[in-house]
Amino acid sequence: MQPSENALVPFASVDHMMALIHHVGVPDILRQLVRYIEDDFRRWERFDKTPRIGSHSDVGVIELMPTSDGEAYGFKYVNGHPNNTEDGLQTVTAFGLLADVSTGYPVLLSEMTMLTALRTAATSAMAAKYLAPKGASVMAMIGNGAQSEFQCLAMQTILGLSEVRLFDSDPIATAKCAQNLSGSGVAVVVCHSPEEAIEGAQIITTCTADKRNARVLSDNMVGAGVHVNAIGGDCPGKTELAPGILERSKIFVEYPEQTRIEGEIQQMAQDYPVTELWRVISGELPGRSAPEQITLFDSVGFAIEDFSALRLVRDLVRETGHCQWLDMLADPDDPKDLFGMLMRAKSADFTPLAG
Amino acid sequence: MQPSENALVPFASVDHMMALIHHVGVPDILRQLVRYIEDDFRRWERFDKTPRIGSHSDVGVIELMPTSDGEAYGFKYVNGHPNNTEDGLQTVTAFGLLADVSTGYPVLLSEMTMLTALRTAATSAMAAKYLAPKGASVMAMIGNGAQSEFQCLAMQTILGLSEVRLFDSDPIATAKCAQNLSGSGVAVVVCHSPEEAIEGAQIITTCTADKRNARVLSDNMVGAGVHVNAIGGDCPGKTELAPGILERSKIFVEYPEQTRIEGEIQQMAQDYPVTELWRVISGELPGRSAPEQITLFDSVGFAIEDFSALRLVRDLVRETGHCQWLDMLADPDDPKDLFGMLMRAKSADFTPLAG
Repeated sequence: MQPSENALVPFASVDHMMALIHHVGVPDILRQLVRYIEDDFRRWERFDKTPRIGSHSDVGVIELMPTSDGEAYGFKYVNGHPNNTEDGLQTVTAFGLLADVSTGYPVLLSEMTMLTALRTAATSAMAAKYLAPKGASVMAMIGNGAQSEFQCLAMQTILGLSEVRLFDSDPIATAKCAQNLSGSGVAVVVCHSPEEAIEGAQIITTCTADKRNARVLSDNMVGAGVHVNAIGGDCPGKTELAPGILERSKIFVEYPEQTRIEGEIQQMAQDYPVTELWRVISGELPGRSAPEQITLFDSVGFAIEDFSALRLVRDLVRETGHCQWLDMLADPDDPKDLFGMLMRAKSADFTPLAG
Repeated sequence: MQPSENALVPFASVDHMMALIHHVGVPDILRQLVRYIEDDFRRWERFDKTPRIGSHSDVGVIELMPTSDGEAYGFKYVNGHPNNTEDGLQTVTAFGLLADVSTGYPVLLSEMTMLTALRTAATSAMAAKYLAPKGASVMAMIGNGAQSEFQCLAMQTILGLSEVRLFDSDPIATAKCAQNLSGSGVAVVVCHSPEEAIEGAQIITTCTADKRNARVLSDNMVGAGVHVNAIGGDCPGKTELAPGILERSKIFVEYPEQTRIEGEIQQMAQDYPVTELWRVISGELPGRSAPEQITLFDSVGFAIEDFSALRLVRDLVRETGHCQWLDMLADPDDPKDLFGMLMRAKSADFTPLAG
């Protein structure tokens, strides 16, 4: 018995995702992601928004991040387990789904570990386009884990960055990042302290994985005119910046209701003034307003960015056919006859799909 | 390039689910489901609980239902679109996932359209075991859609029901249900009004799909000593019972915080007294306490029931091997080297999995 067409949902596996990325090329997929995310940030008010729904344990968190624009519905499943790397597992893995709001039927299931790395980097670069000082060409990259190369390449592609200065408390991670970026066209400088990494940098990106209130940047390390792209503070009790930096910065966030719980600003009062990034991208409010200003993108990752990324994957899957069809939805000929479908499966020459 | 073992997640497709059900047999899978759900209701307080997260549109709802017992985490995606049947689609489709709390890695992806029908019926029968009058043998089944046969068979299996009296405003649905139940050992009486259906019934199950405040049962239709199993009132603005019935009944619910929003009791005051079913199952509180009492299970479906069902599927998949392995998680040899994995996929003799 073959499942009907309604039963089948296209699935972009990790292997398919990598094929899609190479089909387009890394720089172009980052450009397309920035375009899709900007489009969705411009129509921010049309989205159904909610802070992500987390389930916390001693060792990590599992989160669901849903949103909808009224036509499509998307959600991401994502975990964060800082100790996973000790067991050879990823800190963050993710998958997501896009569905048709008018029927509730899924239209795409996709791996999102790879995709989240890309969309996070694209979001950082999009924010830096509006917030970094003019002509920024040097970035300090503090934390050289799984996200770091994507951050560097997105900043190169979108802002024309020419030099990255790498630091990680684990020198093997730095060596890996430097090796991966050789040949990218970005000059790589391996640094041995955060202080060395920030020398001459107009952009400072922090992306570490410790689940605690860390001081990756202390107050005296951040000078006038810098853009801070803070990625790693993304759950309650996990921050990277000294509060003094926040006090001297103009702070931009994705969704304040979520960022106040999860971001660097969890260290500040609940009404501490922040600017929503979408208002900058839509042209309603200014981004950077003076050369000496310190801008801070307190990024925690928001559901709309995943929605944009899933929209792009849906479009690329349609274009390339790179997917696998899953028999995911029970689809009886008579929709009221689910039981009859089950009974006919017994009497039919029944062979389950290959394992 | 072959994905590593960590990358693979077992997927129980619709076809696999039907094979699993027939491997065990419908009555036995209902018995096992009741056992798994009872086990989880008994340890209710250990679960991380939240009302489901819904995204509502004019034509339906898409919901996420997460929960965790601290060791496993589960969630279900489910839609409810009453008009879908007009287009040959299911009103409700669902899939779900079970993950390991200690790593955040998924351990099972499963279709849940078929599974939700089974777990809903098992939950109804479990509740009726504690709430229906002793020796109940006749049930009125009002609403003969996709859920109806499962309800009848679960009540037969768990309570020893001998007669079901079917009514639906759509006589074709009733004929389908009667046909499907022929040979089940339950006597089937086709009725032409709700009043006729409830004649002599000790259990009245309502399971209609209209998304509005309906009056499937009016106050004068429900007499002393009856157990009402109200399934269809399950979202804001969708109820089936006249408020007078609620006032005369002892009301049992799954999770009050959710039922007050979605169940029949949305018609009552926010502090209207209800009894949590888990307290009855754990022996803390009585179920039915007098023969003449009207008991009402105001069932909306709760995440823990799906969690129990996913646990059972995980165990059956392990036992039978009925599943398909999905390359769902990016799993680089060095967990910090996601980018290197992407680059090696390009240089390798790269063939995406078959479409």
